[in-house]
Amino acid sequence: MDEDTLIAEKVAEARAAVEENEADCWLTFARETTEIAEPCLPFLLGFDVVWPTAVIVTPERSVAILGRHDAPNAEALGVHDVRPYDESIESDLVETVDEIDPDAIAVNVSEDDTVADGLTHGMYRRLQELLDGTGYEDAFVSAEDVVARVRGRKSETEYGRIETAAAETERLLAEAVDAWTPETTETEFSEFLHERMREADYGSAWSWDYCPTVHAGGAAPVGHTLPGERTVPPGEVLHVDFGVTVEEYAADIQRLYYRPREDGEGIPDGLQAAYEDVRAAIDAGAAVLEPGAVGHAVDAAARAELTDRGWPAFQHAFGHQVGRNAHDGGTLLGPQWDRYGDLPDREVAVDEVYTMELGVETEWGYLGQEEMVRITEDGHEFVVDPQTELRRLSP
Amino acid sequence: MDEDTLIAEKVAEARAAVEENEADCWLTFARETTEIAEPCLPFLLGFDVVWPTAVIVTPERSVAILGRHDAPNAEALGVHDVRPYDESIESDLVETVDEIDPDAIAVNVSEDDTVADGLTHGMYRRLQELLDGTGYEDAFVSAEDVVARVRGRKSETEYGRIETAAAETERLLAEAVDAWTPETTETEFSEFLHERMREADYGSAWSWDYCPTVHAGGAAPVGHTLPGERTVPPGEVLHVDFGVTVEEYAADIQRLYYRPREDGEGIPDGLQAAYEDVRAAIDAGAAVLEPGAVGHAVDAAARAELTDRGWPAFQHAFGHQVGRNAHDGGTLLGPQWDRYGDLPDREVAVDEVYTMELGVETEWGYLGQEEMVRITEDGHEFVVDPQTELRRLSP
Repeated sequence: MDEDTLIAEKVAEARAAVEENEADCWLTFARETTEIAEPCLPFLLGFDVVWPTAVIVTPERSVAILGRHDAPNAEALGVHDVRPYDESIESDLVETVDEIDPDAIAVNVSEDDTVADGLTHGMYRRLQELLDGTGYEDAFVSAEDVVARVRGRKSETEYGRIETAAAETERLLAEAVDAWTPETTETEFSEFLHERMREADYGSAWSWDYCPTVHAGGAAPVGHTLPGERTVPPGEVLHVDFGVTVEEYAADIQRLYYRPREDGEGIPDGLQAAYEDVRAAIDAGAAVLEPGAVGHAVDAAARAELTDRGWPAFQHAFGHQVGRNAHDGGTLLGPQWDRYGDLPDREVAVDEVYTMELGVETEWGYLGQEEMVRITEDGHEFVVDPQTELRRLSP
Repeated sequence: MDEDTLIAEKVAEARAAVEENEADCWLTFARETTEIAEPCLPFLLGFDVVWPTAVIVTPERSVAILGRHDAPNAEALGVHDVRPYDESIESDLVETVDEIDPDAIAVNVSEDDTVADGLTHGMYRRLQELLDGTGYEDAFVSAEDVVARVRGRKSETEYGRIETAAAETERLLAEAVDAWTPETTETEFSEFLHERMREADYGSAWSWDYCPTVHAGGAAPVGHTLPGERTVPPGEVLHVDFGVTVEEYAADIQRLYYRPREDGEGIPDGLQAAYEDVRAAIDAGAAVLEPGAVGHAVDAAARAELTDRGWPAFQHAFGHQVGRNAHDGGTLLGPQWDRYGDLPDREVAVDEVYTMELGVETEWGYLGQEEMVRITEDGHEFVVDPQTELRRLSP
């Protein structure tokens, strides 16, 4: 089964990540994951749990301690030593940690990286209490580096899903544009895509109501907005930010479409120039995006190109990783702003998948473009073909 | 809009809950909620956020501090004072807390109640750092009681959705049973329901692949299992645990169906007796389920009835609350086991919605039944009609 393959790939990656880490084991601790997801569990178990559950990974093996009802699903994976419990996780947890006897236990705590911060404060306290008196209750360190590697470096199975999600995002966009007429409102454009997503059983890469985000023309407010009753005026631009999920993996793409004027005139010079500035800034970031690049340096290259061309700086990061989530955590191609913590200070690594995105506000509409790339040994490759010109809308 | 009404109802409930609480304000702090959901934000905002976001509720007002891109959605609710920020939440957060000048700040931390434990450990540390030096960084207390009231006591809008979800769950089950044939496998029964859910655009009350859980006959393994290739043997029982979500609110129901034997004989005496024991135990719990009842006492009444009749005790709680989640947190009708923390020690309150569920393993199949009830001033009422006899399967 495809899902079992994926989990086997990621658990192997996790063992290697622990091997190269200062900690002796990586402990993921969670409960009721349909209510509060533990972002690492999909790589370790692949199913939701109800009772407190621990998965402990060392360089040699992994142990899953979970409620008896969930145990058969863990057994079926064939990758973990499974320890089912009935009333309390305590004895199995303490025995397992005792066997490992770690100097440092990596736990999912991170001020800066959401996907490495799945341990709630209540569960952190509970973990300390469970290990109270063992000597291990003060051995916790952050698993940020382990999580960044496990989640960031995409396995073949994962990358296949991301490629499919990106290709399907482009395909559905092409269908929506084919069906477009001058009377199509933002809401109707969005509903067309939602209908196609339902038919194909695809999820949305972010909140359903905001995916796609659709901006019709220069009068549309910029940002994460709900679609409205606006249509694209002649001579203006339709901006779409969209991504489907396929088998739990996301795409995140922004595309731009120009509605020709009724007098047959071409694209206004100012619009064409602004679009070329957007593309040049993306290209400038792309030029330095390779293994070992530091996140904020990539952002700065794109940002400087845009501001040098006279535009205001964009108020977001140039690029983020994509995987199970459209914002997948880890190294961020962003400025060193407080709200990004240390993510922009981290390095880009092979097999990570990033967006490259920016935009400018113009009288013709918001010109935002977003591409997806995979990091290769010597640079990067596009997941799907990038947009290289303003696409034309035709009724 | 229905969703705005719901949020207005719940924010009003939150102000009242803070008024009766020891804390002076309730602070919910979250980021990237598509990755790690903050279980309280759907009651306070109703949309996902990317950047660090704080919602602070006092008895008099509520303040939402969030990234500028998310601000228009918060403004549109019309219930909060909205403070958008660009680079850091710090100054708006500190100013707002300074204005309130609280002795105690309730935050979403709970060792026992998942839905009141939405603050991750990394975000807890970050909150302490943001308030460092203000005197408020050590003022945190648990918001458990506030969350239990806000989430537990269902507003009219919420209860209407739960009623619809329960009625639709029964309707889809009836359709699946109408379509059943002796050749129908567990997987086919599950796929039939999934197809109907897709058509109706309903979600699953727990993980899609495990909702429904379907057990065909006495040879099926018990527990949270995936459906398999088994069919119901003549003279045995089909057990289904199922719930749809309608407008984000869940149902959670277990039903039992008997496949008649081919020789025309009736239900085996042993099976009928076992089923009556299950029903009697549910009735015994129901008899003491009313406002002010303590969770573990309700569980004990049902448990004792079943064990007095010679059955082993069930390895789960008799009942849990239902709302946005099939396991909605707060007071639990469960035994005082370590894994349940203090939830069984809490009291039942008016307008909460609970399941009542238990089962026994027999040679004819797992006999599990689960009902849903709303707590009323003088007891409880069933959300949908309870099952009172083994329903018959007919091809």
